[in-house]
Amino acid sequence: MENDDVVYVGNKPVMNYVLAVVTQFNSGTNKVTIKARGRAISRAVDVAEVVRNRFLDNVEVKDILISTEKVTSDRGETNVSAMEITIGK
Amino acid sequence: MENDDVVYVGNKPVMNYVLAVVTQFNSGTNKVTIKARGRAISRAVDVAEVVRNRFLDNVEVKDILISTEKVTSDRGETNVSAMEITIGK
Repeated sequence: MENDDVVYVGNKPVMNYVLAVVTQFNSGTNKVTIKARGRAISRAVDVAEVVRNRFLDNVEVKDILISTEKVTSDRGETNVSAMEITIGK
Repeated sequence: MENDDVVYVGNKPVMNYVLAVVTQFNSGTNKVTIKARGRAISRAVDVAEVVRNRFLDNVEVKDILISTEKVTSDRGETNVSAMEITIGK
């Protein structure tokens, strides 16, 4: 796991996260995992696709995982979907 | 591809698509592919997770693909992310 980095995708514009991922690769990382939960999942896919298609041609999707996480809020415990996209050289 | 079925996820409630997927499996299909584009991608993950965790314990994620599709609208051509989740027995 030494060369692995993680970018958490939230509600900011897609390009913020694209920049974060590209920066990781430029600093010598070989693999970046893009993580998101709930509605941000769509944005995580956008991030992976923009990085691959517009910035780093030599990067490909290595693995995609989906899961369900329990989130405790003031309204009790709810389930939320989560996704991890690992891209690498 | 004879035993493959496709469910397209759009803007309806998650349970509508869950019901569609479960119905496919109950009619004898071994594999169902859940497809979505843009913001509906998050909902497609919800559908796959709800089917697996609440309805069909013997179904697992077989494959997840992400891609970029070109969509032509009245404002010109834009790119949209797409995802396919294949679940099966």
